[in-house]
Formats: sequence, structure tokens, C-alpha cells
Amino acid sequence: MIAGRSSECSILSRIKRMASVPSGSQLKVGIGDDCAVFRPRGGAEDLLFTTDMLLDEIHFRRTTHSAEDTGYKALARGLSDIAAMGGAPRFCLLSLAVPRWADQAWVDGFYRGFLKLARQTATPLAGGDLALAEQLACDVVVCGAVPKGGALLRSGAMPGNGIYVSGKLGGSALGLATGNGRAWKRHLRPEPRLALGRFLRERLHATAAMDLSDGLSLDLSRMCTASRVFASIEPPPVFPGATLDQALHGGEDYELLFTLPPGSRPPASFEGVPLTRIGVTTKVRRGDPPGKILLEGKPLPPLGFDHFQNS
Amino acid sequence: MIAGRSSECSILSRIKRMASVPSGSQLKVGIGDDCAVFRPRGGAEDLLFTTDMLLDEIHFRRTTHSAEDTGYKALARGLSDIAAMGGAPRFCLLSLAVPRWADQAWVDGFYRGFLKLARQTATPLAGGDLALAEQLACDVVVCGAVPKGGALLRSGAMPGNGIYVSGKLGGSALGLATGNGRAWKRHLRPEPRLALGRFLRERLHATAAMDLSDGLSLDLSRMCTASRVFASIEPPPVFPGATLDQALHGGEDYELLFTLPPGSRPPASFEGVPLTRIGVTTKVRRGDPPGKILLEGKPLPPLGFDHFQNS
Repeated sequence: MIAGRSSECSILSRIKRMASVPSGSQLKVGIGDDCAVFRPRGGAEDLLFTTDMLLDEIHFRRTTHSAEDTGYKALARGLSDIAAMGGAPRFCLLSLAVPRWADQAWVDGFYRGFLKLARQTATPLAGGDLALAEQLACDVVVCGAVPKGGALLRSGAMPGNGIYVSGKLGGSALGLATGNGRAWKRHLRPEPRLALGRFLRERLHATAAMDLSDGLSLDLSRMCTASRVFASIEPPPVFPGATLDQALHGGEDYELLFTLPPGSRPPASFEGVPLTRIGVTTKVRRGDPPGKILLEGKPLPPLGFDHFQNS
Repeated sequence: MIAGRSSECSILSRIKRMASVPSGSQLKVGIGDDCAVFRPRGGAEDLLFTTDMLLDEIHFRRTTHSAEDTGYKALARGLSDIAAMGGAPRFCLLSLAVPRWADQAWVDGFYRGFLKLARQTATPLAGGDLALAEQLACDVVVCGAVPKGGALLRSGAMPGNGIYVSGKLGGSALGLATGNGRAWKRHLRPEPRLALGRFLRERLHATAAMDLSDGLSLDLSRMCTASRVFASIEPPPVFPGATLDQALHGGEDYELLFTLPPGSRPPASFEGVPLTRIGVTTKVRRGDPPGKILLEGKPLPPLGFDHFQNS
């Protein structure tokens, strides 16, 4: 068994070591960020690629998630990765493995939810694959674009940068726990922050960004590790009704986490979504583990969702 | 249930109708060919994208396929699609859903087989996703490139074109039936015809091409439907030991099927792989169904592998 023996992070490090990218490749960023970055020959833009699987009983439950909600969410997660790099979506690919319980109405509903979001975000479906299987599994690839060299990476934060989050955190975890109200809607239909991502890149000159998919404590730790900094934060803004624990460690908020150069004065909100400074990056201290975070001066463990350790 | 009610083809047509591509999109070819074709802004090349799922008990069996063979095949199928469009691979993405029976040694073996072929074909792994699941499922995206406007499509054949196949057909079906010898190796480790695909595009000016993944009878019928032609063929070259039925209807040969303009004189082989003329495309006759094929003057039904009807 993989579960219990390795964390997702340690498996990914091993794969990353095995999967060396040859020098001179058009791949500018490979495994480890929200998206891979590919530079087309002679092109004016870099292309971003992200791939996300959605599995029954892991990422959704067919007893509580409608086919349309499931299709929506399958695409929303990839779009959120494009937003985190400051990109504009260009197209998507969808592979769907369909078990026998999923009838034609379910499959049509899934595509309806998926394609509605695809139209709203100008992300045409370019292709995919379809097969019968025992468990419903879908894999979505989204391609986005940024001006050459402009992608916002996890690794760009410098000591002394302000740390910010969009929105209020913990809503998705609260929704999953209660199954009703605004929080449940939040869990079912997260909004990819595409316009905000571009605003961070073009106007705020963010030094690093990523989306909050596995919980602030784990995701901020990953950003700090990639950027080789530490972080010192205050409690983040909490979704109405959620606990601080849900805001710190709950996954699937799909808000953006980003850092700004010292002296930045971002607006208090962007298109109705609050932008809140929650702390500052600091220099790494020798002997401390990478990615260390202090919350109100006390170490914050990365308790967010690890797909291999929490299963 | 989807099986028994719809064919893969009818489901794909419905999805294609739902998934309209907006005018002015950078997508030059969407759903329906071996790859989607995307034109980067200001770029010198078109990019090709193909996505293929590999599922336990459908595309391989863990009792007979080693982890390395499975990893090899997961990538080979996508590379074969790139070959069919005349492209050179640029990078790949891999999503892997791992069930509990797959221990660390299995996962490492899978990546070893996958990454060895990736290195041999200069197709670096750019990213992916990893999750625990009940059934092993993997989804591979391969990106390739061709000069702008140069992709070989299924839809380019004109009446009077010669129809050709590479290699000898039915080897994979024979291997699956017997489980030993050269045919079994053929089934386990199909060779993507990347150099041949580029030769077809650059030197032979092929009018149409596709790879033989689901059997000659079904794949040629698809090509004829896309090109709005009929076909009249002789028996294709048969893999030693295979039956004519296996050569006509057996899947997973991953040879190339292509058409050449009248008067073409291709070599008898390319890098040791025979190139054989098996027939000619003809004008569609009113009242006949699309994609009709005659074998030695008699109608050949498209009996190849349909993932939804054969399940």
C-alpha cells in the first residue's frame, strides 16, 4: 500500500527526480507548480498546463453531488490552477471513465455542468477520451496562456513580502460538514478566480501565487518551501460560520494565496472579493525545517489535505 | 447503462454538438481526430494534443502485464496519435489513480516503463496528478508539434487516393489470444511510428492519416466518414500466425493507415517497416451509408473495437 507509507509530497519528489527535463527543452517549469509552463517556438505567449483527476467517493459523492455539480467542479479545479498562474484559459481536455450506475442522463448532466462553465470562461473542450470502468474517474487538462515569462510561480516570494489571501477561508470545509446553505454551495461550485489572477500579475506584480486547494497551512508551507522562505501569519479571514481550524486546514476553498513586494498597497477587495494581508515572509533560519509557518508566533503544522496520507 | 444503448461514436457526436468551439478560437481542430490542433499566438508551429485513458481489466491486466509494460503502453498510445498527425512529441502529462493492490514497487515500475519511453522519444513528463482509487486508471496527455497548418488529418483523403498501411496487422490480437512469442511482445510494447509519421507528412505528402488502434475495418470506416469517401480494398498484410479476421478487426496494432495522392510511389518499406498499398478511396454513392468499405468487392462491416458496444 502506498497510503500510510509515503506522502503525496514524497512520491512527487521521487517522480520529479526520475523525470528529468533535458536542457534546451521548451518546458520552462515542470513538475511541482500549479501548472507546467511550455514556450511555443516563435510564440508571444507561454502556455500553462494543469491536470486534475476527480474520483467518486474521494472528490465528490454521487449521493450528494448532482451530475451537473460534478461536471462543474471537474473543470473549476483546473481553471483555478490557471488563475493562480495569472493566466487566461485557452482550451481543455476531458477524459471520463464511466461506471454502469451512470446512465445517459447522468453523463449528459455531467457534460452540461462542465460545458456551461467552459462557455462562461471561454475554455472550449478540444478533445478527450471516454471508457467504461468500475469507478467514475475523470481527468481534466486545462491549457492557459500568459505573456512570455509572465507566469506567477510558487517559488517567487522573497523575505519581507506581504502574504495575502482572497476571500474568506473554510467555507468549503464547513459546507462539506453541514451539507447546506451558502457554505455547501461554496463547496459544490467554487469560483475560479481568473480575473483576480490576471489582476495580480498585471497590476499588483505579485511575486508568487498559488490556489488554495488543500488548506492554507499545507499550501502556504508548499509555497514557502518552493520560495525558500518562512512565513509569519495572523489568523486568516474566516467564512461565516466556519471555525478557525476549517479556515486554516480545510481544503477546496479555491481562493488565491499570493505575495506582494514590500510597500504594495492592494485594494481591500477586487470585484467584490476581499483581499486580506495575513502576514509576511521571513528569512529561513538554519536548522529549521523548510516551509515553516508561525501563526501568532507559534508553529503551525501543515495539516491540510494530503491525498495519500489522509486516505 | 450506456453500454448496449449507445456506441462510443454516437456519444462522441452528441458531445461534439454540445461542445461548440467559438469562432476565432486558436483551436484549429477539435473533437474527432487523433489529436486536437492548437495554434499558439505568433508561433511557427501548431501544437497537437491527445489524451488516452488506460484502465485495469480493459486496456491491460495486472496478472499478465508487468508494471513496466503498463507504463510503456500508457505513453505509447498517445505517441502513436502524435505520429498519426505527422508530429514530433514535445512533452506529456500523466494522471495516475492507484488502488491499494499497487505497492510502491509497482508504482516505481510503472514510472520506469513510462519514463524510459519518454526519454527515448524526447517527451519529458511535465506534470500530472496522483490519487488513491479503487481501480487503477491512468490518463496520459501527449503534446506534439507540426509546422503551422501541416497536421495530417483523418479528413483529407480525396476520391482516387491510394490507401496504405504500415507493418503487418493482427499481431496484437494474436498476442492477446496466445500470450506468447513475438505477437505477445507486439501487444505489450507497440512501437509508435513517429519517424514514419513525419516521413508521411514531409516526403510523401500524405492526404490523410490515422493510427490503427481499434482495428482496420472500424478505423478505415472512420477515416472514410471524416473524408466523405468510400474505400475499396484488398486483404491487408497479415502478421505471421494471425488470421485475416485478426488483421481486419483486431485492435491495438498502432500501425499507421494513410492515403497518398494518385501517382505516388512510396518506398516498399521505411526503416524496416513495410508500407503496403491495400486499396483506393472512391466517390461516395448516394443512398449508401457513410464510411462504406468494400473488401474484394464485398461490403466489410466495421467490426473493430468499440469501447462502449463491446463492453
